[in-house]
Order: sequence, then structure tokens, then C-alpha cells
Amino acid sequence: MKIERVTEGLSLKRDLDSGTEQQRNAVLEILENVKKNGDQALLDYTAKFDGIRLDSLKVTAEEIEEAYKLVPEDVVGYIREAAENIRSYHSRQVRQSWITTEADGTILGQKITPLDAVGVYVPGGTAAYPSSVLMNVIPAQVAGVGRIAMVSPPGKDGKLPAGVLVAANESGVREIYKVGGAQAIGALAYGTDTIKAVDKITGPGNIYVALAKREVFGDVDIDMIAGPSEIVVLADGEVGNPDYIAADLLSQAEHDRRASSVLVTPSMELAEKVSEEVEKQLASLPRVEIASASIRDYGAIYVTETMEQAIEAVNELAPEHLEIMTVDPIGIIGQIRHAGAIFLGENSSEPIGDYFAGPNHVLPTNGTARFSSPLNVDDFVKKSSIISYSKKAVMDNGHKIAALARLEGLEAHARAVEQRLK
Amino acid sequence: MKIERVTEGLSLKRDLDSGTEQQRNAVLEILENVKKNGDQALLDYTAKFDGIRLDSLKVTAEEIEEAYKLVPEDVVGYIREAAENIRSYHSRQVRQSWITTEADGTILGQKITPLDAVGVYVPGGTAAYPSSVLMNVIPAQVAGVGRIAMVSPPGKDGKLPAGVLVAANESGVREIYKVGGAQAIGALAYGTDTIKAVDKITGPGNIYVALAKREVFGDVDIDMIAGPSEIVVLADGEVGNPDYIAADLLSQAEHDRRASSVLVTPSMELAEKVSEEVEKQLASLPRVEIASASIRDYGAIYVTETMEQAIEAVNELAPEHLEIMTVDPIGIIGQIRHAGAIFLGENSSEPIGDYFAGPNHVLPTNGTARFSSPLNVDDFVKKSSIISYSKKAVMDNGHKIAALARLEGLEAHARAVEQRLK
Repeated sequence: MKIERVTEGLSLKRDLDSGTEQQRNAVLEILENVKKNGDQALLDYTAKFDGIRLDSLKVTAEEIEEAYKLVPEDVVGYIREAAENIRSYHSRQVRQSWITTEADGTILGQKITPLDAVGVYVPGGTAAYPSSVLMNVIPAQVAGVGRIAMVSPPGKDGKLPAGVLVAANESGVREIYKVGGAQAIGALAYGTDTIKAVDKITGPGNIYVALAKREVFGDVDIDMIAGPSEIVVLADGEVGNPDYIAADLLSQAEHDRRASSVLVTPSMELAEKVSEEVEKQLASLPRVEIASASIRDYGAIYVTETMEQAIEAVNELAPEHLEIMTVDPIGIIGQIRHAGAIFLGENSSEPIGDYFAGPNHVLPTNGTARFSSPLNVDDFVKKSSIISYSKKAVMDNGHKIAALARLEGLEAHARAVEQRLK
Repeated sequence: MKIERVTEGLSLKRDLDSGTEQQRNAVLEILENVKKNGDQALLDYTAKFDGIRLDSLKVTAEEIEEAYKLVPEDVVGYIREAAENIRSYHSRQVRQSWITTEADGTILGQKITPLDAVGVYVPGGTAAYPSSVLMNVIPAQVAGVGRIAMVSPPGKDGKLPAGVLVAANESGVREIYKVGGAQAIGALAYGTDTIKAVDKITGPGNIYVALAKREVFGDVDIDMIAGPSEIVVLADGEVGNPDYIAADLLSQAEHDRRASSVLVTPSMELAEKVSEEVEKQLASLPRVEIASASIRDYGAIYVTETMEQAIEAVNELAPEHLEIMTVDPIGIIGQIRHAGAIFLGENSSEPIGDYFAGPNHVLPTNGTARFSSPLNVDDFVKKSSIISYSKKAVMDNGHKIAALARLEGLEAHARAVEQRLK
């Protein structure tokens, strides 16, 4: 793994697939067709793209039952425990509606209301992740969303992966449809006879899914367009077993050829050890081809002169995942301005957050940690302002409001308030 | 104003300008030029589009001083009072970082961090609203944003409107630039010598500004693409002076030909009185042409059979502004699922919220109240998850996490955790 001495100004090599013209046109055509032909379009596209002609889109109780036979009982237990941890963490994010009252009768407030309905997209094939089901569904449930519809493309056997079905059932999803791609996004956005429209769509997908989400945004809300996964390890050289650091870098690298794994440290000694260890561990990985390409093209070890420079480098990188391996990791948090998830100390391996600890694994990629957040309960509620003025309050303040309206040349605004002063 | 009997299924007539191909290309060219030529491009576009060749973009202390001479002293006082109300309301939205600790040494948490830098766009010409300055700037300040840069197109005299400068100064903005249009958005997104890049851009603008915001989204965050303003009045016929209702409907109508003003009521008597009163008040408005077109094309009075139907109609409309004029308005809030701002009782005229009460006037338009919120303090912070596992916690749970990783075929994830179990 290559080592580079840096003093300032670095940035992650990032590569966000924004699709070709041809892909965009294909997506537009699919969405239009779903809008027009509803379920028939969904069944036709599933036959065409997934290679299976289904009679019905909805997953049955029998299919769920069958899935449980395919997942080892202890693993079902771990899914259940992870779901509990995720629910417990997200329940701390819940906010209450509030009001303030004043002596003149004024009431102001903020009403928090869960979204009516949310759609969760779960990718198929090798990217079918039960953990993504939990991470997308549970915050919506904790927020109080009334209806959650899950969609996922079936395999050639017409089934969804057992792990995905178990995770969906364990988290309490009752509406699961066997449809994927842009057609599934169209169904969630516009509605069909079988799949009623939702207000927001979350969950990752391939380029067609990403383009379709971008397209329906505005008609419905979407979560984000995720880029490739990123990890940055910040280590002072005192703490942080090189074996651990190498293993954590590789856990990102196996995701995707374009995933980015970076170590930032003022210690050349640590840099050299980790570089060596990465090569050693890499060789025996089943996804060695993907991980090697990722480490080669998007991996880096940056050696800074000081720890301060290393911290500033992290803020420039604004990573999705940040591991802090230093003598006093919690003492550094205050200096970290941009990171999706922060892992403290050498025991806090990033996969702990991917699967189990409780915080969400849907995180801002591609430098967007500068301005965006992990998926959370707030993403599934909306706020409404509440304003109540009494006769006294409007009599006392009406002339001020009218003056401000006239400063902006909005006479009807001024008169609306003055109606109350008569 | 036209009256329509409805029983179910109605929607606002909405009209969102999404720009022409020509406008989109013009915006792309401007953004590219600003990226390449920086300040020079800004000065050139300002000469071309605003008709004034400036030497320098930054508003000076002298210009601020001059502005104060042009705004009556009492109105400056009202701006100050409005700013205080807005600050007070938004300060109740502030959230704290939190952590949880467990006996096995696990620490989980959520760190709240203000954005580094925010840009606020303030439109020029007749849409130059001092109130918009307060509504965009103050929530960012309350959130703790370190740097706020305001941009606004100058008039042919090379100046910004006095009211806008006073509002900016009163709210404490110290960086104000005389540049507007797509070029201002480009400067905020990419940075120039004079205007450093920001992380998020908020504030309304014309179609070029809206298209430019859409384009830079991803490089920076944006607030929303606002549609035309909307008001829905829900009245039971018992409460709600028809003169008040008519005046409030007209206060929206004067904004824009495409603004939408709607009354929903089970009372035909009230419907007829309001319809009549709208025509009467309309005639004497200075912006009669705009307001008439709006009322004709986008205005409606819907008469339902029951109050329940009227409430359901409001939820279908999902309005930006909702006024509830009924015997017990607060008793109805729980049934309102979608509305940007809710005004209670016949004294709570909508302009009170536009200017003075405290809640934000930047609200979800175009039915997006189904899933989005008024501009608020949360829009100017981001969250980071915190995860710290002790040796004990990873020894107790590591095998579960490894099993979940292997269920997803991610071997390097499993091994990263197992490194800690050795």
C-alpha cells in the first residue's frame, strides 16, 4: 500500500457514478411505463431484467416461513439482538412536539409528525444485505411512520434472499414486494394497484435505482445518492495495532473497487507496518480482486509531520467512517468537524457499526459529511410551525407587522393584519 | 372567486417552473466560467445582467451606514424586534450532543456539529425582502455556523436595497457581496478570491438561481427549490370573519400569478360571503393585476359536506400555510398531518408569521409538506455517530458480528472484528 508524506491540502480520490445518457433515458422510459401501466409494467420488467415471470409481487407468509429454515438459528438471534440495539439507539433521537405560551395569549410551537408512508429499497444479488433492512426500516418505525413498504428484486427462482426476509420480518415489515430496479422506484413514487405510493424512498441500489430516485425526487423525498464506501483511520502511532488497522482498511476495500481506505498518521513506523500488513492480509481474502483494485486505486497512507496536521487532514477528507486510534481518542472528538461515524479506540472496528452497535450504517459518503448526517429518526418526520395570536397580541403588534409588509411593498399583507385592528 | 362543491379527492393546482433547456445551458456556462475565472467572471456578469460595472463586490461599512438613513427609525426597531422573536423561537430548536454509557464499557452517542460556512442568497428587485434575510440568517447563527456569507444582486446604481442591508446588519451578517444570479451561486459553491466557498446555500431566487442551486447540489448542500406560495384556510363557518379570510387569501395572491389561495369549509354561506369579499377587496390593491390572475387561475373555495371531509381535504392539499378558523382550532391540530405552518384562530393572520412571530417563513411548498419542514436549526447542523467498544464488549459480541458479516459474504468485515478476539 502506497505511503505518501503530506504537509497540507489533501483530498480523497472519489468516484461517483452519475450514469450514462443511455442509462438515464432507460430510467425515464421505465418510470413512464410504470406510471401508465402499473402492475403489468412491474411484472413485465421483472421478467425481462430478473429473468422470472411472477404471478404476484407480494411476498407471502409461506415464503417468510421458508426463509427461517435457511438461516441458522443462532444467526437469527444475532439479527434480533442487532435490531434491538438499533431500536434502542434510534429511540434516543426521538423528539417531541413543543409549544410556548405567553401572557398576552400568544402560542408558538413546533409539531412533529411522522411521515405517512415510506418505501425501503433493498438491493438484490451479492449486495443483498439483511443489515440494510434493519438500518433503513427501524428508524422509520421509531419515528412512527404508519406504513413501510419494502421492495427488492427476486432471483431467477422468484425468491428473495432468506437473510433479507428474516431481517424484514424481525424488524416488523409486513409489506414486502418482489420487484427491483427503476421500476420498483416508480411503483413507490407513483403507486400501482398492488403497491400504494409512499412519501419517501430510502435505501441503496445500483445506478438505475440511483437515477430513478433522483428523477422522482420532488414528487417524493429520497434519502441520498450514496457514493462508494470510505474509511479513514487516524492513528498517533502510540495506540493502534497495525494488524487491526490493516484489517479495518481491507474491510472497506472489499466492498467495491471504488471504495477508499486511508490511514493518516504522523508515524512513519506505523505507516510502514500497516502497509506491509495490508499486503499480507489481502492475499487470503475471498474478494481479493476487488479489495486489491480498491487499495491500489483509492487507498493511501498519509504521513503528516504533526498530529495537528493529521487531524486537519481528516477534516479535509470528511470521511464516511473515521476510526481514531490514539492515546485519548475522546479528547480528539471536539476537533473533528466532519465525519459520518466516529469509532473510538483500537477495539472499535468499523464492522461493529455496520452490523451491531446501534447507530446507523447509512452514512454520508463522498465528502458530504461536511453537511449531511447518518440516516436517523429526523429523516422520517416533518415539522410544522404553530402560530396563535390573541386579539391582544395582534392589537399590540399589528402596526409593526403592517409597517414591515409595506417596507417590502406587499400592501395586501399589511391590510390582512390591519383587518384585525378595526 | 369560484366556489366548488367537493366530496373527496382534490388537489391544489400547482405550477413549478423547471426552466427551459436554454436557461439550463446558460446556467451551466455561467457556473463553468465562475469556476475558471473567479472574481473577474462575477464582475463581468454583474455588468452584463445587473447593468453596473463594480470595482469591488464587498459591501462596505459606509454603505451600511447610508442604508440606515433610508429606513425610518421605527421600522428599524420593528426589524430588531422581529429578529429577536425569530432568534428566541429558533433557539428552542437547538439540540445537544449526547452519549450513552454501558457497564461493559460501550459508549454510543450522537455529536451535533454546526456547518462551517453557509451562503444566503437574497433576491434583488421587487422581491428584495428584508424579512428573508432574517429568516435565513438567524437559524444558521443559532445553530452556531461559523461563517455566513450573503449575496444579492445590486441595482443599476451599484447598491443593495437599504432594508436588506439593515436587516443583514441587525442580524449580525458581516460578509455581504453585491452579486446575484447563477454567478453568485457558483461563487458560493466553488469559491473565488473574494468569496470563499461555503458548505450550504439557502435562500430563494429566480429560475436561474434555482437551476444553479440544483446544479451545485452535491458539491454543497442546498435548502430547497421553492415553488409558488400557497395558503389554505380551513373554516367551520362558526368562527372566521369573511373579511379576514378574504384579506388573508389575497395576501398570498399578491405574491405571484401562480400563488394559490384556497378556502375549505362545509359552510356554503361562508363560501359565498368570502367570494364576494375577495372581489371587493381585490379592486383596491396596488398589485391587483397579479392578485386577480392568481385568484382566477389558482384560487378556489371548496365546500365539503362535513368538517371531517374538510380536514381530509386539507391533508390532501398539504399546504405551505394553513389557517384554522374554527371554534376549537387547537383541537384540530392532531388531525392535520401535512402543513408547513399552522395558524390558529381568526386573529392569526398569515403575515404575522411572514414577518414577526418567530417561526420561519421559509416553508415547504408544492405539496412537499408531506415530507419536508420549515427551515430550521437542524438544517444548519450535521450529526456524527459515536461508537466506542471496550475490549470486553468486543470479546462478548465479536462472534455475533462476524457471523452477520459472513451471512452477507463480507469475509474481510468478519476478520476485522476477529482480529480483536485473538
